[in-house]
Amino acid sequence: MRVELLTVGDELLLGDTVNGNAAWLGRRLADHGLEVTRSVVVGDHLDVIIEAVTSALGRADAVITTGGLGPTYDDLTRDALAAAAGVALVRDPDLERRLRDRVARAGRELRPMALRMADVPEGAKVLRNSAGSAPGLRVELPGGIVYALPGVPHEMRTIMDEAVLPELADLGARPVVARRTLRTVGMWESDVATRLAEVEAMDDVRLAYLPEPAQVKIRITVTGPGAAARLADAEARVRDLLGPVVYGTGNESLDRVVHRLLAERGATVATAESLTGGLIGAELTAMPGSSVAFGGGLVTYATEAKERLLGVPADLLAEHGAVHPDVAAAMAAGARDALDATYGLAVTGVAGPDPQDGRPVGTIFIGLAGPGELSIVIAPRLPVPGTGIEVRDVIRRMTVVHALELLRRVLLGLDVDDRSDAAQTDREV
Amino acid sequence: MRVELLTVGDELLLGDTVNGNAAWLGRRLADHGLEVTRSVVVGDHLDVIIEAVTSALGRADAVITTGGLGPTYDDLTRDALAAAAGVALVRDPDLERRLRDRVARAGRELRPMALRMADVPEGAKVLRNSAGSAPGLRVELPGGIVYALPGVPHEMRTIMDEAVLPELADLGARPVVARRTLRTVGMWESDVATRLAEVEAMDDVRLAYLPEPAQVKIRITVTGPGAAARLADAEARVRDLLGPVVYGTGNESLDRVVHRLLAERGATVATAESLTGGLIGAELTAMPGSSVAFGGGLVTYATEAKERLLGVPADLLAEHGAVHPDVAAAMAAGARDALDATYGLAVTGVAGPDPQDGRPVGTIFIGLAGPGELSIVIAPRLPVPGTGIEVRDVIRRMTVVHALELLRRVLLGLDVDDRSDAAQTDREV
Repeated sequence: MRVELLTVGDELLLGDTVNGNAAWLGRRLADHGLEVTRSVVVGDHLDVIIEAVTSALGRADAVITTGGLGPTYDDLTRDALAAAAGVALVRDPDLERRLRDRVARAGRELRPMALRMADVPEGAKVLRNSAGSAPGLRVELPGGIVYALPGVPHEMRTIMDEAVLPELADLGARPVVARRTLRTVGMWESDVATRLAEVEAMDDVRLAYLPEPAQVKIRITVTGPGAAARLADAEARVRDLLGPVVYGTGNESLDRVVHRLLAERGATVATAESLTGGLIGAELTAMPGSSVAFGGGLVTYATEAKERLLGVPADLLAEHGAVHPDVAAAMAAGARDALDATYGLAVTGVAGPDPQDGRPVGTIFIGLAGPGELSIVIAPRLPVPGTGIEVRDVIRRMTVVHALELLRRVLLGLDVDDRSDAAQTDREV
Repeated sequence: MRVELLTVGDELLLGDTVNGNAAWLGRRLADHGLEVTRSVVVGDHLDVIIEAVTSALGRADAVITTGGLGPTYDDLTRDALAAAAGVALVRDPDLERRLRDRVARAGRELRPMALRMADVPEGAKVLRNSAGSAPGLRVELPGGIVYALPGVPHEMRTIMDEAVLPELADLGARPVVARRTLRTVGMWESDVATRLAEVEAMDDVRLAYLPEPAQVKIRITVTGPGAAARLADAEARVRDLLGPVVYGTGNESLDRVVHRLLAERGATVATAESLTGGLIGAELTAMPGSSVAFGGGLVTYATEAKERLLGVPADLLAEHGAVHPDVAAAMAAGARDALDATYGLAVTGVAGPDPQDGRPVGTIFIGLAGPGELSIVIAPRLPVPGTGIEVRDVIRRMTVVHALELLRRVLLGLDVDDRSDAAQTDREV
């Protein structure tokens, strides 16, 4: 069973929107043993959409489209599917009633253009949208089936899960493929790959490397009979070869691992953030139930705030500026004490794009204050990706990863000193 | 001049990675008057890459590929381009020397597989990578030119800007098209579109609507002679019809607008964040120079932290729980006072996916404390997108937008009361 994705919208081609829908659909289908073989984006042009749907069905058994089902005149997917099927658009009375009800409940006025969302290619099946107004459509064409979903992400996801996946999972035979993704932190991509040479050499085992800021994900794919058991072997070998730089699998992000380790120990953490401005706190509250191990933190972006909120000594700041290992240590202790937490985790540094206090972009200090006298400061060397404004975003994201990783290492009793030079996102030689 | 994008990598199809490279390239090309007419993603399969490059050149004049140029064995774009051109891969001595130098400078060991990055299809031009190791390639094929760039974003961007764009901009004649994006906050998509009907009816003017959490971006495209002047007319009309819900243009995000307004008034803001965990602070520090108007804030995720760090009265918390308008007001005043800022901006609410203190998911209160007695609390009604874990992310992002918008309204002296029911991301009827 081959599935292609077709995303419709000028905003994707112009780059106003990133294609998160395609990524989500790819993950969802892979989780159900289905393979996306190609993903195409086209603009809001009727003839182009018709051609793209038709040629996709020449290669695949099913096509999932997103976008172009809304109320405005740049929404053309409905019309394209009717044209591809050689049928007319007809107004669906149930859909019309539902739209009118929604408007009435909200105490709002019905816009005539909104009724476009009640138009359906003749013979198509309506896929109910329980999260919004624009319904999905299921249209059978000569080459296969088209599932058309709206572009608004949560509506697309809802219809996919409620109506499309159950049907596709029935149609698609499970291929003999087993996959797993391991997450590593603090190691260069080709160092990882070199260390895994013997796994690369295993029969029917394929490794892929996905670099992210300060992390590399490794996807292991095993094909053929007994794939699941052989995947377990390959995973065990990878873990042996890499050791504790492997911190999780699949969607088990670093914040979740840290939360689990804290909860297991009955410990809590408080944050003090300078250059990251709140990103570490946001990461530590991404999951529900975070308050078990994270009560809060201090965002001390300006130098003066470090003194005022965290009690960093004024003379220390005056002598060395805000980007200094002793400042990181004092910030960490200040956060721990302010929130009465087990650990305080603090970052200070230069996000760029310009140097600060004579320190180059990418200089960061991460402080961890623990129970009793425990105080650690590390200074990971960050690669500086270019000179533009986007440097800032990458350095902030790398800083979040290094901070969480320091806490993970300490919670697990792992060595932390050997890490200062290791972590890079740069594609290395 | 038609340009297609081809992104190579199983990780994109599997959804492990979102295709940010395609979005960036689309923006960059559009800024230079060039149009991306299609964007395709394929997996790491030699024959599929060859076919995709060839068929793209059947439609377009140039193809830009990203991915598949790294050191590991799943990197196949080099090989595919050599095959498509019918030539061999040859090792480039300059590239090999450069790779060896990089390794030596870093005091590291050369991995044999890294030398793959010095292999080039015979006759291809090397596009120097000043931000990393994997070079780009320029290959002339019968149907047009292929520019192959690495998949690591900052390396891709660097080569694009330094080597590809200057050449493409020379080749491509500027089309007679003028475009502008206006950013709105707090209005439903079809209300925006309905109010703009007379602009939709203008000759050669095209509007597109890009909904985001609590925002809608409107892209105005004008074609034909005198496009620039007529774009100015259309923009003025849109602004007349929508009024102050238009807050910015192009990349002028809400945080930048708020920073500008604060700086113009010599004012500062401090934040107190519960459900957002630091996202407002992160947004307010996304741009360099933020410390002029933002010194810092308090992340008070747990209820106890609101009392401890912000001085929210214990009996108020005991009686009403943390999700209450008076708590939002007290948090705002607490943040303002803790940082000695002009304004305090606070959020408390239920991000989900489960209700809290008897309040449903999506309940939020935003408090603003200003100079003197100024204290405002609003309770925007957020649409709850579904029931899954992704609800949490959307509600947190909507909350950030509503908070910044409240501050913008107050700074501009605009009415704030009429906004409680207005802002939605839900595709409405």
